[in-house]
Amino acid sequence: MTNPSPEIAPAPSVRLPTREGVLRAAAKMNALLPHTPLLPLELPDGNIAWCKAECLQPMGAFKIRGAWHRLTELTEEERARGVVAVSSGNHAQGVAWAARRLGISATIVMPSDAPQIKLSETRRMGAEVMLYGRLTESRDAIAAEICAERNCVLVHAYGDPWVIEGQGSTGIEIASQMECFAGGAPTRIITPAGGGGLASGLALACPDAEIVPVEPDGWDDISRSLAGGSIVDVGANPPPTSCDALQAIATFPINFAVMASHGMKGVAVTDAEVRAAQAYAFSKLHLVVEPGGAAALAAVLAGKVSVDGRTAVVLSGGNVDPAAFASVIADI
Amino acid sequence: MTNPSPEIAPAPSVRLPTREGVLRAAAKMNALLPHTPLLPLELPDGNIAWCKAECLQPMGAFKIRGAWHRLTELTEEERARGVVAVSSGNHAQGVAWAARRLGISATIVMPSDAPQIKLSETRRMGAEVMLYGRLTESRDAIAAEICAERNCVLVHAYGDPWVIEGQGSTGIEIASQMECFAGGAPTRIITPAGGGGLASGLALACPDAEIVPVEPDGWDDISRSLAGGSIVDVGANPPPTSCDALQAIATFPINFAVMASHGMKGVAVTDAEVRAAQAYAFSKLHLVVEPGGAAALAAVLAGKVSVDGRTAVVLSGGNVDPAAFASVIADI
Repeated sequence: MTNPSPEIAPAPSVRLPTREGVLRAAAKMNALLPHTPLLPLELPDGNIAWCKAECLQPMGAFKIRGAWHRLTELTEEERARGVVAVSSGNHAQGVAWAARRLGISATIVMPSDAPQIKLSETRRMGAEVMLYGRLTESRDAIAAEICAERNCVLVHAYGDPWVIEGQGSTGIEIASQMECFAGGAPTRIITPAGGGGLASGLALACPDAEIVPVEPDGWDDISRSLAGGSIVDVGANPPPTSCDALQAIATFPINFAVMASHGMKGVAVTDAEVRAAQAYAFSKLHLVVEPGGAAALAAVLAGKVSVDGRTAVVLSGGNVDPAAFASVIADI
Repeated sequence: MTNPSPEIAPAPSVRLPTREGVLRAAAKMNALLPHTPLLPLELPDGNIAWCKAECLQPMGAFKIRGAWHRLTELTEEERARGVVAVSSGNHAQGVAWAARRLGISATIVMPSDAPQIKLSETRRMGAEVMLYGRLTESRDAIAAEICAERNCVLVHAYGDPWVIEGQGSTGIEIASQMECFAGGAPTRIITPAGGGGLASGLALACPDAEIVPVEPDGWDDISRSLAGGSIVDVGANPPPTSCDALQAIATFPINFAVMASHGMKGVAVTDAEVRAAQAYAFSKLHLVVEPGGAAALAAVLAGKVSVDGRTAVVLSGGNVDPAAFASVIADI
């Protein structure tokens, strides 16, 4: 496997994400959609994990939050020019969903090996999809070219202050739901992590909670970056992973700054642990969770992160091809 | 196929279910568990159905509501003697869940051909399971014998005022969620129907909404009873159905009285329509819905019942064997 294209920086942004921005995004989400539930899940040891079921968002993942927050704060001129996004699928669908609702044209650069369900849903929602070879082409270079040609805004999947704030609205909901059902603030939030958009948003939303980003084995660049004190990428030959949604090459400074100052430490999970978590969510929660969306639960079930009575586990997405899901539940 | 055992009347009850009882049950559920979400589902024609995801209850079905309401209103003496229930699986798990939480012993009479997942979960929750042959033995006779021997309370799956009120709490939640997200009261609630416990509870909860009970083809005794003005049973040779949760032989007078006075009309769906609805819920909602739980959505997708902007569709349960579910999503 050749080295995937290095990430390039998004358009320079004059601002950093803030907790006020997270609260503003949460207020917008409140008005837009029902809260996804925080479901009590009995673990095999009898403990309860509180699962934030983001796979129940209309397009099947938390990505709708960041996309909505970003697109609703474009200027009229920016709206008219349309937006571009780069995504393996969930961010694509989030941007497509928000763009359709707001009447903005969207172009999404997606890898040709993305799950069929993610490609077809993105197109169904009216976005223009441009495919690229994950191993041979730079998706960011393609996106940058389109943006330059059309003078339009790039909605980065994680390295963007609005996107981070939008994803953080998940944490505001978790906090109010945990207060209501477990009698206090969340002590710990365990979350799947690709580029770190959600993890950094959760840190802004819940500054007093421990945030644990979970990555696939061999794609644990955030864990290693946090441990080493500076950003490293996944390296030359990352192994195959079922977690298509978590295949980010490196986090961005805007994410790293928030995660590092929060004192986060990450963990990594295997594909087998992820499959076990998908099967557990099927049997016990009756939820369809995609591989990347099950990474945080995988870490809990594998005993890599513990839960207390006020630990939240984010199930971040549910867009999985039927055949792949059938193979997972065949193991039960 | 021989005629399944006729239902026998539950222990005589001195009271009828009331809307006040439904509100009391709803208050208890509020304190016990998060509301299941009311999820907007885009239909192929672009209309929105609001899906009440009762498959997300801890034991996977709305049955937890009636069981909790009934068991929490037993006297201390009744609690000490334990309870008996008869169920193909979801009511079994609801009673087992509530009984374990309240420290009450529970005996459940279940058909030997119930889905394995329902049998194993009921046992895991600590209930004693007694199996019977669905076609050769009378489950109600077995239950009546145990009740007489032990002098204990029978928690009937639908012919019980507390159970009806408890199931009705679903409607109270739907009403508040619909108000919040669709700006008004539900105009219509479409619900799977077996014995009619949920349908009659919904009628008490939402007296101004149209309630549409949906049954499997050939098991549409409620539809026929409502059309004819008196209770009829399913008849001598009901066809096979995938909807194990909806195989009630006949509704009870306590349910029929509520449904008939509400002016309900029922519809029936085929197994193929049910499978299509399960697949649609998998793809669009990321929910695992069992066959019986998908009956109301099946009626909508088949064009047998229409939705307006304030129509709720109950997805009543998600307890399905993995192999059966894998076969459904293989069709996608």
